Amino acid sequence: MKTNKRAVVLLSGGQDSTTCLFWAKREFDEVYAIGFDYGQKHKKENALAKEIADMAGVPFKLVSIDSLSQLHHNALTDSSIEVCHEKPEGELPNTFVPGRNLIFLTYAAIYAYTIDAHHLVTGVSEADYSGYPDCRNNFARAANVAISLALDTEFEVHTPLMWLDKSEVWKLSDELGVLDLVREKTLTCYNGIPADGCGECPACKLRRAGLQKYLNSKK
Amino acid sequence: MKTNKRAVVLLSGGQDSTTCLFWAKREFDEVYAIGFDYGQKHKKENALAKEIADMAGVPFKLVSIDSLSQLHHNALTDSSIEVCHEKPEGELPNTFVPGRNLIFLTYAAIYAYTIDAHHLVTGVSEADYSGYPDCRNNFARAANVAISLALDTEFEVHTPLMWLDKSEVWKLSDELGVLDLVREKTLTCYNGIPADGCGECPACKLRRAGLQKYLNSKK
Repeated sequence: MKTNKRAVVLLSGGQDSTTCLFWAKREFDEVYAIGFDYGQKHKKENALAKEIADMAGVPFKLVSIDSLSQLHHNALTDSSIEVCHEKPEGELPNTFVPGRNLIFLTYAAIYAYTIDAHHLVTGVSEADYSGYPDCRNNFARAANVAISLALDTEFEVHTPLMWLDKSEVWKLSDELGVLDLVREKTLTCYNGIPADGCGECPACKLRRAGLQKYLNSKK
Repeated sequence: MKTNKRAVVLLSGGQDSTTCLFWAKREFDEVYAIGFDYGQKHKKENALAKEIADMAGVPFKLVSIDSLSQLHHNALTDSSIEVCHEKPEGELPNTFVPGRNLIFLTYAAIYAYTIDAHHLVTGVSEADYSGYPDCRNNFARAANVAISLALDTEFEVHTPLMWLDKSEVWKLSDELGVLDLVREKTLTCYNGIPADGCGECPACKLRRAGLQKYLNSKK
């Protein structure tokens, strides 16, 4: 591991990755952000990510990936598929984009390699487990090893939210002094409505319940 | 592991991956091939890969990836950089495309996932070690675990050439009955000349020396 404390944060413009961005600003000397245009329906995700990076004073690199939608159709990239509001019994939600997080982490590592950064930060979490296999800790650890061997570089993949539920993520953003920024600027909603969102999709329900729980705990 | 013996072969149109394609045809019930257009200078690679797949009676899926050249410049994707004919002392050759094999394996796994295949075949090798870290066995094993966890699917990454030198790869293609096909149809040369190639670049030298050694051993 090199001695410089330079980190690349995977930034989608959502609550989790935005919280990670400010966490990284506290933990590292130099922070860079990377985002992905992979054909997702909500193009404003990346516009928000860029705005958030600007507010944080962090350079933002956007990478276009059209290959994911060439290989698999799902509700996040195919506008003819509607997002399931209920997780189907024993199945993955139809918002699963297979392989997405390994592709993203690998591109983030390639970017980090070109700027001599050795720390990667991603907001994946097992706590409010959605069923996405590539949000699990074992996946993140295995990806860390595969990426390091692929590039012959000792990366560390940081997952500061891995064991936090949504109310604890709000708590962390409050400790970092950015709860209002996260609440107002980020997009979590599957229907593409920023800030408090549609309130109906699974992502909104989780986010709102977490915020309520955290705010109640402060009273 | 599912009981079907369906495999996806990463096919570049070179000697190694073409040999792997015919190896897979011997080992598995159903074989599919996947190739990548990642901005490499020699577009004919993929045209040859398609021709070879057709001759083998195997469906060929071509995936376009322009994100690698968005992130890093190297002699294989940037026409303003000339291929180094000598490997620089203590450095990687300037033909190294960082992260390439992890990206390719992940896309191959995503494709395999969509067609319910669990075997992936790639022609990477440590024997004639070029210095590319993502050709090593440890990398292939780590990638196998990361990919399987990412997609929650038990993949097996096969690397039949891992410990074979070039003369042994020629021997394998002879055993598979395709030595002449491999010699005439594949492109290994960094200067884009198929079959016996330019004879000057490191890839041609390795390929020719291996063929000579194997042909001599048969006398």
